Amino acid sequence: MELEFLGTSAGSPSKFRNVTALALKLLDEINEVWLFDVGEGTQHQILRTTIRPRKVTKIFITHLHGDHIFGLPGFLSSRSFQGAEAATPLTIYGPRGIKQFVETSMRVSQTHLAYPIKYVELDDEEGVLFENDRFKVSYAGLDHRIKCVGYRVEEKDYPGELMVEKLQEVGVRPGPIYGQIKAGQVVTLDDGTQLNGKDFIGAPKKGRTVAILGDTRKTAGIDKLALNADVLVHESTFGKGEAKLARNYYHSTCIQAAQTAQRDHVKKLLLTHISARYVGSMVKKLQADAREIFPNTWVVRDFDTYNVPFPERREK
Amino acid sequence: MELEFLGTSAGSPSKFRNVTALALKLLDEINEVWLFDVGEGTQHQILRTTIRPRKVTKIFITHLHGDHIFGLPGFLSSRSFQGAEAATPLTIYGPRGIKQFVETSMRVSQTHLAYPIKYVELDDEEGVLFENDRFKVSYAGLDHRIKCVGYRVEEKDYPGELMVEKLQEVGVRPGPIYGQIKAGQVVTLDDGTQLNGKDFIGAPKKGRTVAILGDTRKTAGIDKLALNADVLVHESTFGKGEAKLARNYYHSTCIQAAQTAQRDHVKKLLLTHISARYVGSMVKKLQADAREIFPNTWVVRDFDTYNVPFPERREK
Ligand SMILES: [Zn+2]
Ligand SMILES: [Zn+2]
Repeated sequence: MELEFLGTSAGSPSKFRNVTALALKLLDEINEVWLFDVGEGTQHQILRTTIRPRKVTKIFITHLHGDHIFGLPGFLSSRSFQGAEAATPLTIYGPRGIKQFVETSMRVSQTHLAYPIKYVELDDEEGVLFENDRFKVSYAGLDHRIKCVGYRVEEKDYPGELMVEKLQEVGVRPGPIYGQIKAGQVVTLDDGTQLNGKDFIGAPKKGRTVAILGDTRKTAGIDKLALNADVLVHESTFGKGEAKLARNYYHSTCIQAAQTAQRDHVKKLLLTHISARYVGSMVKKLQADAREIFPNTWVVRDFDTYNVPFPERREK
Repeated sequence: MELEFLGTSAGSPSKFRNVTALALKLLDEINEVWLFDVGEGTQHQILRTTIRPRKVTKIFITHLHGDHIFGLPGFLSSRSFQGAEAATPLTIYGPRGIKQFVETSMRVSQTHLAYPIKYVELDDEEGVLFENDRFKVSYAGLDHRIKCVGYRVEEKDYPGELMVEKLQEVGVRPGPIYGQIKAGQVVTLDDGTQLNGKDFIGAPKKGRTVAILGDTRKTAGIDKLALNADVLVHESTFGKGEAKLARNYYHSTCIQAAQTAQRDHVKKLLLTHISARYVGSMVKKLQADAREIFPNTWVVRDFDTYNVPFPERREK
């Protein structure tokens, strides 16, 4: 589970930062990549990474401002040129209107995609998008000038590992019985001894949680998404001392993001959506100012990749 | 009058070529820049040039395939962020549908442009878009899978220069009389001598003609646009020996482009819309093969800039 930032600017592309797009790489987990926002030029950025467009199975749009969606028609078209394998279906989640934008773009350009798109338009204030044995993804409304949501991706806990050494100590040799023990069943050995599988399974490994916010000013929805997240991706369009500006423009400061990270017991805070006004040492200052409140803060750059670490083992 | 290529690839962006966009820089002439097609990432390419978006007053779209229009919403939005000066109106010419694409993109993204856009949708097979004292621009239909046109930009001739030395030889000193002479009037000197202004004006300087085609296979419309052009910009999606493929995919080969340049007495041929299949020495071969038929042929790259030279002086 890795986050690869494909665009980290606010509003317009600059020479150093493209407009917003973020890949959540779940290759080891489910061999898929999920995109969060697709600003113009996302397909160009992807060309410079190892991401294969056909691995992208889900796209989550936070809001419909151009710098978050204008790369979608081009990405979808190019994904279709990748041969028959590219016929993997794709789901797009986002505020109402995203379907009309994509479908108009496809119709006007007479683009006939090789794969089906399922649209899930988010009309509610919050909700669960899907939940399976590996992941639960939910969303909650934020406070931007336009309808805007953030997403919370929760990985399910991994079952504990079979304690092979402990089994061998009590004389149980590898065989089909290991499967039953791993399933937590009570098994009876040849000598009549009963073993409870549960005693031979290690502590479950806790899954990871990533919260990815859209553009927003300070609002309650953020906490629902960010609480106890291993990584929080938060916008930081403004700097220290600019809370009033941020409020007027429906954005956040690095300080507000850090306060959220602290309040919600987040493990790592990644600041993105950096204004072109911030370059060089000013970016360092955004980071330093945030770190005074929340030390594990990082201002990201295009192509930065962050591994999402497992939280500490849960004690049994 | 310069052509700056902002994107020269066919279909999808590659690491080396962006999708189609071409700037006709008329800065010395009328302090404007005209764009021909706006593929995704055109605004990013412009960031790497000296072109200022607010100087772009006209956009000519050849056809509505995604690789020719998906950069339009982003370019228009960013042009609007350039301050009050950016309020210069803009005209977009193109096949029917371009207005719907742009307006849907703006509406869905709640983008409120700081300047008005005038749309001129091209329903006829050919026509004159406008004609003033500096330029005449016309279009003609080509043969692509989707409605596609090419454009012909004709600069008006420059009036001849006043022959100052010849005037001084006959004893006429600089003064308001020079204006009358330059206007071609008959003037009477103090000594009663009559001079015909027309005898003191040099040969008119012939204006330049540039023909910019959209994607097309061999078709009659090309000749209407290309005849006697100083520069012809022609697609070259396929190479020598691939005429059948080109026909099937509604594209042209470098050979067909060179034959057109020769037949239409063009002065310089610029080949663009280069497939990602052509890299390195293969690009050189496209060029070499075309040069066997039309020597003044150049395969262009992104950011290549070509000055459009004046044709030789017309003899009086
Ligand atoms: Zn934004
Ligand atoms: Zn094309």
